Amino acid sequence: MTDFSATKALFTLPEGMIYLDGNSLGPLPRATAARVAQTVTEEWGKMLITGWNKAGWMDKPMHVGDRIARLIGAEAGHVVMGDTLSIKVYQALAACLDLNPKRRVILSDTGNFPSDLYMAEGLCRTLGQGYELKTVAPEAVLDAIDETVAVTMITEVDYRTGRRHNMAEITARAHAHGALTIWDLAHSAGAFQVELAACGADFAVGCSYKYLNSGPGGPAFIYVAPRHADHAIPALSGWQGHAAPFAFDLDYRPATGAERLRVGTPPILQLAALEASLDIWDRVDMQALRATSLALTDRYIAGIEASCPSLILATPRDHAMRGSQVSFRHPEGYAIMQAMIARGVIGDFRAPDIIRCGFTPLFIDETDVDRAVAIIADIMQNSLWDRPDYKTRAKVT
Amino acid sequence: MTDFSATKALFTLPEGMIYLDGNSLGPLPRATAARVAQTVTEEWGKMLITGWNKAGWMDKPMHVGDRIARLIGAEAGHVVMGDTLSIKVYQALAACLDLNPKRRVILSDTGNFPSDLYMAEGLCRTLGQGYELKTVAPEAVLDAIDETVAVTMITEVDYRTGRRHNMAEITARAHAHGALTIWDLAHSAGAFQVELAACGADFAVGCSYKYLNSGPGGPAFIYVAPRHADHAIPALSGWQGHAAPFAFDLDYRPATGAERLRVGTPPILQLAALEASLDIWDRVDMQALRATSLALTDRYIAGIEASCPSLILATPRDHAMRGSQVSFRHPEGYAIMQAMIARGVIGDFRAPDIIRCGFTPLFIDETDVDRAVAIIADIMQNSLWDRPDYKTRAKVT
Repeated sequence: MTDFSATKALFTLPEGMIYLDGNSLGPLPRATAARVAQTVTEEWGKMLITGWNKAGWMDKPMHVGDRIARLIGAEAGHVVMGDTLSIKVYQALAACLDLNPKRRVILSDTGNFPSDLYMAEGLCRTLGQGYELKTVAPEAVLDAIDETVAVTMITEVDYRTGRRHNMAEITARAHAHGALTIWDLAHSAGAFQVELAACGADFAVGCSYKYLNSGPGGPAFIYVAPRHADHAIPALSGWQGHAAPFAFDLDYRPATGAERLRVGTPPILQLAALEASLDIWDRVDMQALRATSLALTDRYIAGIEASCPSLILATPRDHAMRGSQVSFRHPEGYAIMQAMIARGVIGDFRAPDIIRCGFTPLFIDETDVDRAVAIIADIMQNSLWDRPDYKTRAKVT
Repeated sequence: MTDFSATKALFTLPEGMIYLDGNSLGPLPRATAARVAQTVTEEWGKMLITGWNKAGWMDKPMHVGDRIARLIGAEAGHVVMGDTLSIKVYQALAACLDLNPKRRVILSDTGNFPSDLYMAEGLCRTLGQGYELKTVAPEAVLDAIDETVAVTMITEVDYRTGRRHNMAEITARAHAHGALTIWDLAHSAGAFQVELAACGADFAVGCSYKYLNSGPGGPAFIYVAPRHADHAIPALSGWQGHAAPFAFDLDYRPATGAERLRVGTPPILQLAALEASLDIWDRVDMQALRATSLALTDRYIAGIEASCPSLILATPRDHAMRGSQVSFRHPEGYAIMQAMIARGVIGDFRAPDIIRCGFTPLFIDETDVDRAVAIIADIMQNSLWDRPDYKTRAKVT
């Protein structure tokens, strides 16, 4: 296993806390505060309006996008930062439906993050004309792709179970049936090397505040494949995506390429925080990251299964089908997670019964995993939850 | 004139600079850097994921919105922060067209900020079905409101000329003809007391990085009148506007009231910067602000007209028709603005010929106005631009 101990020192983590929630909100890199302060005081404070050129603010959505491109296997110049993930989902969907005008079905799965489904519902309602969102079980996506599907909208790694879809296979089948693909990388970017271009993905979206550690409310990104970049008509046609934003023309004319997916004024302070984190990411060997991530999640699974028989694994054992999180199910999952948090093991509960933990090699190591397992085992063994007759007893009392 | 000298000390302004561009990007309040640092280091760094509750991040879009509500005459609980102004325009337009389903025309004017027009174009294209954006001259808006208009989309203060529309009159006429109204307050919020509720406005949108000094890329806001808040169906139906965002239901169900206009995860660092500025705004007497603003703009107009005969006033002399900016026209406006900037007088050039300066009493005083006038007069008098035969000579040389 590659040693990431040097990167752990680049993050501030509260003493004694085992933070297994970097897949929800990444921790603070030590360099971030100074970078944000520099942007506030030296750029905004001293350059004022000229910061848009002098400090390069205007180009940040594309420049920062290029640094994320490496992590997701995207071509340079085709990843654009801005807005929130939900907005980027809407943009990608609207563009795909426009590019595939004879079809009416958006195909997704019931394991997708609800906001993606909500945005698709909203777009279908706005479009009318028979547009519909069809959802199937995650395991049924591949077979559900047929000649009616305009676009698949799939979150590569399921936010609850951690189950990973096969991007190459789904994309190939979609293309074989004349459908386009949108990949939500919320739980992929920074979790492992994504290969958008190699898989032939059409669009992708993602957020930066999980594995990419940009802080609360950090900007989202959108990817468009080069073959679509000059043909995707932006539904959210804001001035920053105009061919000549400072000409102030009365009519919209999209910029060449991916830049047309910009909308409004970019969030410069949040982008500064993201840049500080990308200074770390720029140096990460993604193959080593993946190997370490799998070793950590394997170790956690083995440890929990050996000591907590009532916790049922929800995440695939197959490495190819796993992200960088592990989820266990238990009917009392909410209470168990509260007990874990009280003991300094921070994860997430996700309804109805998921105990979710993320494992980020940048700041989580084997010792953390072993300590987390020991604490969870102690919690379970000192409660009724792990007793074979728990359900019967719970009903009686 | 009320003395705002105490507030001037609350901002950092580069030595010797006369910053007449707070209507484009407001200057940095002295307290902002510490506030943002607190959010980065003490909240994100130490609370991590629990900051969403412990630091109140989840409620910020509504709590911060309430502080802006006072400045724009809105009811508490009906201003929501988030996204960019362009996104908020789209939301408001989509909601209004849905609320007024028998009509197909969005009415705007050619003085509106182009991004508003672009977003309307994009929405009309997405909707199809004969939806159209109709633009008339700013002076012609009132008479153009008829029974075909679904919604008016007007920026109250023209970003180039500084001409202010009559919100009460246009709103009343729109309602008399069965149309709804969207007011873009980009150049109004913080420029003077806006009276949305008193005027009966239906929706409003605005940005925080101009007069409200939230810094580059600060979040936008949207207002919905209480009578519409439970009926406006969000086209951008993100999870943060769901009735129960953490239930992770598969189907969208909008939150009660204005909160349904939230979309994705709010930008907490940018909101922290805005809060630092609102600590100043909370104490501003808006009547005194307006009186001072008018005195400053009057003084600037008089000074320029007395010393620079070739600069032609583009901003109305009538106080009721003026925001907090003054624009002059000159065919060489771009070069003149460059000369001004080189001498430390920072304004904006706006094509084709507008020399635009904003006057914010919080940090601009009479002395600044007099110095700016003297510098501009010196520039004009030492150039060919102000000579009566300038155009003839320019053609010859």
